Amino acid sequence: MPKKMKRFRGRRPDATRPVTFRKDVAPRALGSVLCSFGKTSVICAVTLEEAVPRWMKEQGTSGGWITAEYSMLPYSTEPRKARDVTRGRPDGRSQEIQRLVGRSLRAIADLERLGPRTLWVDCDVLEADGGTRTAAVTGAYVALALACGRLRDRGLLESWPLRDSVAAVSAGIVDGRPLLDLDYAEDSAAEVDFNVVMSGRGQFIEIQGSGEEATFSDRQLAAMLTLARRGIRTLSAAQERALPKNLHRR
Amino acid sequence: MPKKMKRFRGRRPDATRPVTFRKDVAPRALGSVLCSFGKTSVICAVTLEEAVPRWMKEQGTSGGWITAEYSMLPYSTEPRKARDVTRGRPDGRSQEIQRLVGRSLRAIADLERLGPRTLWVDCDVLEADGGTRTAAVTGAYVALALACGRLRDRGLLESWPLRDSVAAVSAGIVDGRPLLDLDYAEDSAAEVDFNVVMSGRGQFIEIQGSGEEATFSDRQLAAMLTLARRGIRTLSAAQERALPKNLHRR
Amino acid sequence: MPKKMKRFRGRRPDATRPVTFRKDVAPRALGSVLCSFGKTSVICAVTLEEAVPRWMKEQGTSGGWITAEYSMLPYSTEPRKARDVTRGRPDGRSQEIQRLVGRSLRAIADLERLGPRTLWVDCDVLEADGGTRTAAVTGAYVALALACGRLRDRGLLESWPLRDSVAAVSAGIVDGRPLLDLDYAEDSAAEVDFNVVMSGRGQFIEIQGSGEEATFSDRQLAAMLTLARRGIRTLSAAQERALPKNLHRR
Amino acid sequence: MPKKMKRFRGRRPDATRPVTFRKDVAPRALGSVLCSFGKTSVICAVTLEEAVPRWMKEQGTSGGWITAEYSMLPYSTEPRKARDVTRGRPDGRSQEIQRLVGRSLRAIADLERLGPRTLWVDCDVLEADGGTRTAAVTGAYVALALACGRLRDRGLLESWPLRDSVAAVSAGIVDGRPLLDLDYAEDSAAEVDFNVVMSGRGQFIEIQGSGEEATFSDRQLAAMLTLARRGIRTLSAAQERALPKNLHRR
Amino acid sequence: MPKKMKRFRGRRPDATRPVTFRKDVAPRALGSVLCSFGKTSVICAVTLEEAVPRWMKEQGTSGGWITAEYSMLPYSTEPRKARDVTRGRPDGRSQEIQRLVGRSLRAIADLERLGPRTLWVDCDVLEADGGTRTAAVTGAYVALALACGRLRDRGLLESWPLRDSVAAVSAGIVDGRPLLDLDYAEDSAAEVDFNVVMSGRGQFIEIQGSGEEATFSDRQLAAMLTLARRGIRTLSAAQERALPKNLHRR
Amino acid sequence: MPKKMKRFRGRRPDATRPVTFRKDVAPRALGSVLCSFGKTSVICAVTLEEAVPRWMKEQGTSGGWITAEYSMLPYSTEPRKARDVTRGRPDGRSQEIQRLVGRSLRAIADLERLGPRTLWVDCDVLEADGGTRTAAVTGAYVALALACGRLRDRGLLESWPLRDSVAAVSAGIVDGRPLLDLDYAEDSAAEVDFNVVMSGRGQFIEIQGSGEEATFSDRQLAAMLTLARRGIRTLSAAQERALPKNLHRR
Repeated sequence: MPKKMKRFRGRRPDATRPVTFRKDVAPRALGSVLCSFGKTSVICAVTLEEAVPRWMKEQGTSGGWITAEYSMLPYSTEPRKARDVTRGRPDGRSQEIQRLVGRSLRAIADLERLGPRTLWVDCDVLEADGGTRTAAVTGAYVALALACGRLRDRGLLESWPLRDSVAAVSAGIVDGRPLLDLDYAEDSAAEVDFNVVMSGRGQFIEIQGSGEEATFSDRQLAAMLTLARRGIRTLSAAQERALPKNLHRR
Repeated sequence: MPKKMKRFRGRRPDATRPVTFRKDVAPRALGSVLCSFGKTSVICAVTLEEAVPRWMKEQGTSGGWITAEYSMLPYSTEPRKARDVTRGRPDGRSQEIQRLVGRSLRAIADLERLGPRTLWVDCDVLEADGGTRTAAVTGAYVALALACGRLRDRGLLESWPLRDSVAAVSAGIVDGRPLLDLDYAEDSAAEVDFNVVMSGRGQFIEIQGSGEEATFSDRQLAAMLTLARRGIRTLSAAQERALPKNLHRR
Repeated sequence: MPKKMKRFRGRRPDATRPVTFRKDVAPRALGSVLCSFGKTSVICAVTLEEAVPRWMKEQGTSGGWITAEYSMLPYSTEPRKARDVTRGRPDGRSQEIQRLVGRSLRAIADLERLGPRTLWVDCDVLEADGGTRTAAVTGAYVALALACGRLRDRGLLESWPLRDSVAAVSAGIVDGRPLLDLDYAEDSAAEVDFNVVMSGRGQFIEIQGSGEEATFSDRQLAAMLTLARRGIRTLSAAQERALPKNLHRR
Repeated sequence: MPKKMKRFRGRRPDATRPVTFRKDVAPRALGSVLCSFGKTSVICAVTLEEAVPRWMKEQGTSGGWITAEYSMLPYSTEPRKARDVTRGRPDGRSQEIQRLVGRSLRAIADLERLGPRTLWVDCDVLEADGGTRTAAVTGAYVALALACGRLRDRGLLESWPLRDSVAAVSAGIVDGRPLLDLDYAEDSAAEVDFNVVMSGRGQFIEIQGSGEEATFSDRQLAAMLTLARRGIRTLSAAQERALPKNLHRR
Repeated sequence: MPKKMKRFRGRRPDATRPVTFRKDVAPRALGSVLCSFGKTSVICAVTLEEAVPRWMKEQGTSGGWITAEYSMLPYSTEPRKARDVTRGRPDGRSQEIQRLVGRSLRAIADLERLGPRTLWVDCDVLEADGGTRTAAVTGAYVALALACGRLRDRGLLESWPLRDSVAAVSAGIVDGRPLLDLDYAEDSAAEVDFNVVMSGRGQFIEIQGSGEEATFSDRQLAAMLTLARRGIRTLSAAQERALPKNLHRR
Repeated sequence: MPKKMKRFRGRRPDATRPVTFRKDVAPRALGSVLCSFGKTSVICAVTLEEAVPRWMKEQGTSGGWITAEYSMLPYSTEPRKARDVTRGRPDGRSQEIQRLVGRSLRAIADLERLGPRTLWVDCDVLEADGGTRTAAVTGAYVALALACGRLRDRGLLESWPLRDSVAAVSAGIVDGRPLLDLDYAEDSAAEVDFNVVMSGRGQFIEIQGSGEEATFSDRQLAAMLTLARRGIRTLSAAQERALPKNLHRR
């Protein structure tokens, strides 16, 4: 690797990749979006089940539930990625990500207001170039808001069940330099890799940071969190533009 | 059900649904297309593996291989369809379909000319309204032709490996009346259901016909085959329009 | 392969192999038969479950159900075929066949008359020399008729639940020549392979035809259907001879 | 249950059920037999693999290997027994039995003389009325001897690889009374259940005895072993009668 | 192997290894013990479930149930043993052993007195040097007695549910010489291997004896049973010393 | 829950639970320890495989590998936790933790110095009262250092392969108050839950923080990181005391 890796198309260290949301890509879903961060694209689709998980019934918990599943389509990477079912069991990394997506959405949702139903949030990666988990969280919120809008239109909600918006972005240290929203080449070269989930109001929801072959200092942590905060502001604004006015967070 | 079920939007008994191909929906793939038959949409994407299956090596078979996988995305149906990996094992119907797609493509391919490599053809249903297997075969051919074009552009092919085009369509008997290209409602009401795979030159590749709760006569068989032949002509023409001139079948 | 492959023991192109039914090979079953087409032998055994599948209860469907399972015993082929359970998951081909057997029997059954019970039809191949699926369907009907006879004898049926008989036979194109009831060597050399399921009254129930590395014409299709129709007549007559008079189709 | 359970057809406490061997029931196998102990019938079939297990190669062990698999056909019991593959994993009891069959055969075989090959011994229960594991061992020996005869006929063996014959029988305590070769009703009522595997020369190979809800004394143990020894003599004689002279143990 | 294998630390042929019970190693369990036979150590822990298995409810069987699970921790052997879950399915040997442990405990328990609850007995091998199954049974009894003591202290038992104690020990023939309580090196060299489960009162519960590559005589059987009986006396005495007076068998 | 939850035994908000390391609990392992944080105890054991994973060979990566597996013993919680193998597939949470343990150890190891071998680090929870993943990381380091000491003693290492020590601790917000090293009751009541992995030299290795039903602020993040840093100092000192001088980090 050269001394200083140049970012694709001259992107600045503190800039996200272009973010887009193509709505209703999966017309059978209650709400869906193709969320792209540059060359990373994830289909996020929300479907409705008029029941809650067994454990909620058994524990007598009222309200609803939001759960997520994440998978990479075989042709999202090069070389092709074998399907989970071929290996006969789910992938540890996929499970880790789908748990993250589910927690992130539940953190900004008022499950009581959802009523006794489950929203399934499926995230299928169509194109992978780093940051699929952050694009999944960011897209999942938009699909969820669209889905809640449909529920409200059908008269199934008494009050709006989302307290805030949520987005996620990565930050990392590459060649000793803090960078925002790493693409695949940057991610592979990163000494430290952070994923930050924040609400639109600027509260933290989840921080995951790791230095696989390295450690990092307080100062580096601070720099990455500053970048992440900046990235979340950009993403939250894009989410707000993508959603009709009447679905904006209250 | 009324005496005579009306087709959606006044479609004639011998008409296919509107057919479209959106190319390059999966940019990492060697070739990809979103093939839609009305409200049925299937992502067909071809990826390259520079190796052949173990059995070919063991048997000393020369040339390459084409294999297919088929899956329904969870949000392609209502209610949501659980992922194969959740049930821990593949679905009998999915396996049946992916075997059909693979056989159909190999029937028009010259595997010798492909060279010692495997083309994986993944078909993921994004929206299901009947006829997902026929849309999968029809789209898979377009994705395959695009992929072969890329291989040729990279100088990996000495001669064009596709001898003909291939498309598939369904026909059935509903209320005693032969219909072409059944949608989900029609398929559910059909006494007999046929899937026909044919080459662009009008040769048969595969015929699968079944009357789950019924039987059918010679005359009905003939009527369905006539319809299917007509449908294949429409689909072949659409495939040809969708592909650049230099990828048309020789 | 020589120009014209000779059939084993000088069999004519339009002749089936010798067909036999050995009844009651599995004495614990409600009805059972060892059905042989030449050197292909399949144990077909019907057992009774006094309940219907969960989906029938959930959908409120009345009547009964007939379902099939198909498997090859490890010593039915050379080399030995590993058991499904060893590979941890069922075989795509086996699933395809058991779905075919189930559909074929349900097509001639009046499930309403069966009452709220399930008949399980197990087909285990004892010796495989091509045509195991057609022998399975053909034997399954005889086992089913025997089983229904027992149910009637026990006073469990008000009226006879089989509307017709059903048999299956293969036809194919080998060296350009249409042949009936292919054995393993012929099947391996066939350009086109058809399996036809028909009722004793001569109605079609299922047609499956495929040219893995080839295509076929209208004329060839017609020739194979003519052969198949002839083969079905032979098989139906053999089924009728095998069954006691009072179990013949009405 | 009455004070003293009467044995079926007035069988004496120290008598086995009628034992029969129907040879060559699975013609593709190297050797096969349908072994029946009264209403218990097991297909035992031996197939050849011209290779040894990976662990033998890794350990540099010379000679061959004999391994067994055991399964109950779904229609061998009432109610129907679901296939192993349906439950997705093998049955603990089946594994226990197939390990027993394998050990029993290896105890009387000279694996060195077998040469670098594996004999697979498949035991599939066609009809189950108690004692399926003892019928499996007893039939497996006959199938193995037939298979070794074929190997010798093909010139693949330099010397006879079986040092002795092997048979198995059960004994138990029912209503406080020792009985030989328990059928299903007796087995269900037994306080203690023994399976004894012995060689034709009267050496023990395996003893498995258990009192699920009970314990047993030295005296009872002695009585059961006496019965078992007597049963094995009967079975060994029957095996010898079933086999051609030139396949008798040396 | 030398003519006569010397036992580790000069152990006599009829001596067990040092036996110890470290109580309450798993403080969350109702009762637990680390049972060591020399260098073989097994964690035995009993947990309570206030329900009985589904089959007991369905059959209307009253009383409770005792069931066991057995597993080897990956670091109990050299080389490391892969976890069962890695292979995706349980190990045949493990299943055989856990069935043995369960049967042995139920043979001395009065399940009626246990009340409608299940005791789960988990046996995890921490260090393996031969005889893990006998240490598992022997330790499991101590853990079970401790657990029953806790149940009684909580007022959940009306009367003591254990009718006797139970212990297990191995005996074998090594170099033609009968030995008690084989360690791994001896077990690997044994011609015959016996596991005997007996009650504290000297009744047999289970006998499993096998000569994998050999057979054994009446005289050898008698010698092994004599050794086993002697070993069980030692183990029963050690169990009694390990347990508080008020938990001794009645 | 009362206004302010009192910590068990009056523990201060910024205090860890008592930390102990019992060495060599698994004598067959290369290095092992029972690491306890109060009532949470984890067996950490390191075993040696003289080979590297297939992907390292394929990628031509030199040096060695460290990988971890994590599991909860069934009796570590109340109610009993079913084994992974019973459910047929690994647990998402377990996979997440074992990936964390592996990454944490690799971050302080010099894999090049390890030589072409794999160290397997197994963490089995014996008693669970919150913080099992942090106890696993903290104990795993001690077991790893012991194992490396043995490798060095055997002359298998040229230079010491650990660059630093590593420990992990949790911090959280309970009733709005930051607490260090949460036990189960505290963890269940926490609004925010952080796990921090740090090296003995005070560098971060991993930060994972999540507010399942809540969000957290910059100020709260800072408070938790301050607590964690303090906890790591305590744990690192305890690790150093537990290890022989010649195994201390360089």
